[in-house]
Amino acid sequence: MAEVKLLRCRECAKEYQPSLKYVCEECFGPLDVVYDYEKISLRREDFSERPKSIWRYFELLPIANSSNIVNLEAGYTPLQKSVRLAEQIGLKELYIKNDTVNPTYSFKDRPAGIGVSKAVELQLDAVGCASTGNLAGATAAYAARAGIPCFVFIPHDIEKAKVTQALAYGAKILSIEGTYDDANRLAAQAAEAYRLGIVNINMRPYYTEGSKTLALEVSEQLGWQAPDHVIIPVGSGAMLHSICKGFEELVTIGLLDEVKTKITAAQPSGCAPIVDAFKRGETEVTPVESPNTIAKSLAIGEPGDGFYALKKIREYRGYADDATNQEIIEAVLLLARTEGIFAEPAGGVPIAVLKKLVEDGKIDRNEKVVCYVTGNGLKTPELLTEDLPTPSIVKPEVRALAPLIQR
Amino acid sequence: MAEVKLLRCRECAKEYQPSLKYVCEECFGPLDVVYDYEKISLRREDFSERPKSIWRYFELLPIANSSNIVNLEAGYTPLQKSVRLAEQIGLKELYIKNDTVNPTYSFKDRPAGIGVSKAVELQLDAVGCASTGNLAGATAAYAARAGIPCFVFIPHDIEKAKVTQALAYGAKILSIEGTYDDANRLAAQAAEAYRLGIVNINMRPYYTEGSKTLALEVSEQLGWQAPDHVIIPVGSGAMLHSICKGFEELVTIGLLDEVKTKITAAQPSGCAPIVDAFKRGETEVTPVESPNTIAKSLAIGEPGDGFYALKKIREYRGYADDATNQEIIEAVLLLARTEGIFAEPAGGVPIAVLKKLVEDGKIDRNEKVVCYVTGNGLKTPELLTEDLPTPSIVKPEVRALAPLIQR
Repeated sequence: MAEVKLLRCRECAKEYQPSLKYVCEECFGPLDVVYDYEKISLRREDFSERPKSIWRYFELLPIANSSNIVNLEAGYTPLQKSVRLAEQIGLKELYIKNDTVNPTYSFKDRPAGIGVSKAVELQLDAVGCASTGNLAGATAAYAARAGIPCFVFIPHDIEKAKVTQALAYGAKILSIEGTYDDANRLAAQAAEAYRLGIVNINMRPYYTEGSKTLALEVSEQLGWQAPDHVIIPVGSGAMLHSICKGFEELVTIGLLDEVKTKITAAQPSGCAPIVDAFKRGETEVTPVESPNTIAKSLAIGEPGDGFYALKKIREYRGYADDATNQEIIEAVLLLARTEGIFAEPAGGVPIAVLKKLVEDGKIDRNEKVVCYVTGNGLKTPELLTEDLPTPSIVKPEVRALAPLIQR
Repeated sequence: MAEVKLLRCRECAKEYQPSLKYVCEECFGPLDVVYDYEKISLRREDFSERPKSIWRYFELLPIANSSNIVNLEAGYTPLQKSVRLAEQIGLKELYIKNDTVNPTYSFKDRPAGIGVSKAVELQLDAVGCASTGNLAGATAAYAARAGIPCFVFIPHDIEKAKVTQALAYGAKILSIEGTYDDANRLAAQAAEAYRLGIVNINMRPYYTEGSKTLALEVSEQLGWQAPDHVIIPVGSGAMLHSICKGFEELVTIGLLDEVKTKITAAQPSGCAPIVDAFKRGETEVTPVESPNTIAKSLAIGEPGDGFYALKKIREYRGYADDATNQEIIEAVLLLARTEGIFAEPAGGVPIAVLKKLVEDGKIDRNEKVVCYVTGNGLKTPELLTEDLPTPSIVKPEVRALAPLIQR
C-alpha cells in the first residue's frame, strides 16, 4: 500500500504532513497528495495477477494499510471499443469508458471509495458528503459496507426520491433550511465540529485521488498507451484535474513513455462556466447563478476546480464545448442504440460534444478517442419518456406482425 | 471457441444436430446443449490471462466462432465476502454474487448475451424476447451492440415506463392485445414465421447456457471450490437448472473435484409454485393463476422449468422457501445497509429466505453460503419509499446538528 509522502498546495507549493488538512494555510489553495514516486518500482507485467478494481493501482492510492480498504470492487470498468458509434460520429477508433456499471452505478464509487477508506484509516467514526446525487449514493454505500454512519447534507427543497438510493443504504439525510451553499458550508463546519470525514470537503485531497484511476485504467486497457484525445464531462472540474494527474503520474513512474493526449471538457449548455471561460479566452471562471440543465450531476454553477480544469485543458491542447438538453438526449439515445450502454444525461454530454467537435473538424477522424461515460440511465429514465416511441398495439395474430417486423 | 456437439432432450435423451430446434420431436421435452467434453482440456492456471467476463469460459459456451460474440463484458461480477450481513444472519461465511452491476444491470446479460451472439452465428438478422422486465432491456442492448433489430413482445396493459430501458436501446415494442400467454405464443409463432431469434423461446437451449456462468464464476472465485450451499431466486426455474449444469460440467472436465453443494430455491410468497410443490412433496408444479408480488421478475405463475428445478433441488439436498413482500423489502434494506449493495425485490428474496432457513436451523452456521442477487434496485426505487425514513429538517447552524449527529 502507498504511504502518502505529503500534501502539497497546488498554488504556492507549501508542503504539509498528511492529515485532515485540505486548504493551504498560507494561500487557501487546494492540497494535492504527493507520493514517494522514486520508491515506486512497477512494471507493466506486475498487473496480470492483480484484482480487477481500482485497488490494482494501490501504489498510487492514498491508503497506507490494506486492512483499511472499504471495498465494493469498483473500477476496472469496461473500455468498450465502439465501432458502431464511431461510424455514426465519423471516427476511426473510439472507446467508451463505461462507468455506469460501478457498484453504485456512477464514477463516484472511485472517489467515495477512497474517501471512506481514508476516513477509516484516519479513525474517523462517521463520514458524509454534501450532495443530492451520485455522490450521496456512493458515500452511503461505502459507509454501509464499513459499518459506520453516513450523513448526507442537502438543501431542504430536494425531494426525498432524489436520495432514495442513499436512504436505502441507511444514510441519515440532513435537509438543511437553506440553499445548496448553506448545506455545503454547514457540512464543512460539521466536519470540524464533530470529526466527520466529509468526503468531498475535508477528505478532498484523498477523495480526488479516486478519479485518477480513470486515467490509469484507460492507459492500461489500451496496452499502456495514452489515447490521442479524451472527452470528459465536467461539473466541478475535479475529475478532469485528477485524470490529468493520473496520466502524469504514470509517466513519472515509467509505466507510460509519454502523454500527448488532448484533454477536452464537455458541459451542459445550461451550466457551462468552464466552457464559457475557455471560449472567451479567460483564465478565471465566472459562476453561473442559476444552472438549468437536465444533466443535474454536472449542474455546478461555481466549479471548485474550474480554474485548474481550464488550465489543464489548455496545457493539454484540448477544447471545451457544451451541449443543449436536446443534444444531450439525442446523444444518450445514440449511445444506447449503437453500443447498448444506457447512460444518465451527464453521460450524453461528452458524446454530444464529441460529435460536434468532429463535425467542426476540431477532432481529426484518425485520432484515437476515449469518451468518459460516468453515470447510469436508470437514475433518470423519466427524462427520456417524451423522446421514446410509443409501443405498437398489435392483434394476437401472427400475420398482423408482418408490417411491423418487415426489415 | 466451443462447437456444440449436439442438442439432447432432457426427457428422452434423443439427440439432434445443433440447430434452431428447442423442443424434442418425440416427447416435447426441452433440449440441452452438449459439448464434446473429452476434447476440453483446461487447467485452473489457464484462466489468469483471460478476460474478466463470461467469455473466459468459452470452451463451455455455445458459440463456435469468436467473431460472432456480441460483447458488453457481462459477468465476472463481484463475489462479495459479506462479513456484516453474515453476522446479522448468524452465519460464519457468506458471499453475495452481485449481478446488479452487469452492463444492463441484471443477470439477464448472461443468457441474453449468449442468445443474441448465437442468433448472429446462425445468421438470423433480428432477435427478440417475450418479457416486460430485465430480459427486455438485456436483449435490446445486445441487439443494439450487434446492430440488428430487436422485437419485444409484451401484453398491451403494461405501461410504457416498464420498457423505457429497452426503448432507449432502440427495441421495437410490440404491445399484444391479449395476455402474457398470448404475447408468448405470438413470439413463438413469429420466431418461425419471420426467422427471428427469440432468445427465450427458439434460442432457449443456447440462451440458458449463459446463466451457467453463475456457477462457473462462483467456483473460480472461491478458488475452484463449490460452496456448501447456494440460495437461488427462482422464477421460471431455468437459472437454477443452469447453475446445476455449470457445477456438473466443471466436475466433468476436471476443474472441480466434486460438488457437494446444497441448492436452495427462493420464491416470493405471492408466486411460489415451486416452493409449494416442494413443501407438499410433489414432483409436478401446480401453476399460480394470479401472481401477486412486488418481486415482478420472479412473478412467473407457470414456470417453464419448474419440474426440473424441483428435481434438482431434491437431487442437491436443498430447500425451497418463500418470502412475503414485507420480508423482501426488509431483506433489500438489510443487504443495502450491511453490504452497500442495492438490489431489486427479486434480490431481496434469497436474502430473506436465507435468514429464515438459518433461523429454522435448516442451514448450519458453519456452511459456506453463496446468495445470488440478480437485479438492480434502481429499477424499482418506488417500492421502498414507504419504508425509508423521512429526512430530518435542520436549521443551517452547526449546533443544531448535535442531536442528529450524536453517535
